[in-house]
Amino acid sequence: MEVIIMKELLEANDKLAENNRKYFKDRNIYAVNLMGSPGSGKTTLISAINKALSDIQIGVIEGDIESSIDTERLGKEGVKSVQINTCGECHLDAKVIRDGAEMLDMKDAIVFIENVGNLICPAEFDLGENLRLLGASVPEGDDKPFKYVPMFSYAEVVAITKSDLIEAVGYDIENSYKGLRAVSEAKAFEISCKTGKGVNEIADYLKNAFLNM
Amino acid sequence: MEVIIMKELLEANDKLAENNRKYFKDRNIYAVNLMGSPGSGKTTLISAINKALSDIQIGVIEGDIESSIDTERLGKEGVKSVQINTCGECHLDAKVIRDGAEMLDMKDAIVFIENVGNLICPAEFDLGENLRLLGASVPEGDDKPFKYVPMFSYAEVVAITKSDLIEAVGYDIENSYKGLRAVSEAKAFEISCKTGKGVNEIADYLKNAFLNM
Repeated sequence: MEVIIMKELLEANDKLAENNRKYFKDRNIYAVNLMGSPGSGKTTLISAINKALSDIQIGVIEGDIESSIDTERLGKEGVKSVQINTCGECHLDAKVIRDGAEMLDMKDAIVFIENVGNLICPAEFDLGENLRLLGASVPEGDDKPFKYVPMFSYAEVVAITKSDLIEAVGYDIENSYKGLRAVSEAKAFEISCKTGKGVNEIADYLKNAFLNM
Repeated sequence: MEVIIMKELLEANDKLAENNRKYFKDRNIYAVNLMGSPGSGKTTLISAINKALSDIQIGVIEGDIESSIDTERLGKEGVKSVQINTCGECHLDAKVIRDGAEMLDMKDAIVFIENVGNLICPAEFDLGENLRLLGASVPEGDDKPFKYVPMFSYAEVVAITKSDLIEAVGYDIENSYKGLRAVSEAKAFEISCKTGKGVNEIADYLKNAFLNM
């Protein structure tokens, strides 16, 4: 019974995701579904990319189970953003993304969808995005690609964030790549928003993808 | 429809959790449901507490969506542990805990249930544990109690792990306590398994709870 309901839910979601894809295309929006654990540095990464791409419009659909801390923070930095509170739900779905996109009301832009902090459930829900980006932070540990396979294989690009902490936490980056390569051909960027390492590289990657879509 | 199914699932789980509680009591087991984000340091905390409590038997029911990395690691340290792979499921439930407890087959012990790394979903599932312990690591950020309210209000004890990184990541511990106190009266321990800070304190707390249950 549970399985049937889940299948129905996912099928309904997939249809709405297709509608979102058309909505984004019609408005020349490049939508990035940014996923990752709580505290993996998702908001900080968006903020850094926004600063690096001063010639591109950036919007954010911000998902949290509660609070509007991240939207307020991005607002102070002049980033146009809308908040979606899932009221306990552990992921965003295509329906709420459409609502968020209409509230955001942008065109000719890169729009980040900052998913709920969760390394498992968001990998089941297509949002109609152009790119699935995973923020995986160094302090989470280099074994995570081995343990959270669905998410690491779902991501098309992986941002290894907080790389300035590699020595402090004894992170074995070779082991991390070994785990990632076992399940995925995702492009990986080593990033530190603190030192600036890798920020221009990922920003340029997204800019090129946006301009050439 | 989804809501009805979820309610039925949770009610069925609650009944099995009550059975688990009796099972643990009959065997003089103090069961600790250890929850937290991916990479919050749950396995490292269990390992450190095991070393601090050399006069108490420790067992572990290890939950992961896949892999047996943590069980192998604990096994090398001489900790009796069993692995439960949820095959994609984002939390442990009372049924799999009973299976795990029977495989572990211990009595007169503290048994840690290391939940799947997830700061949301496990807070909905009673496992029949004696204590709900949350591992919340410093690099996740001091704003987490404001954003993940269901989990922080569900926890009875919070272990603020990786506290040696407070300066490196600019963690505002006062803000963290402000968020925690807004939703919970949970006892909090500041811990670093690297420096040893707080390890004996939380180990003694658990030992006393076990001996006086």
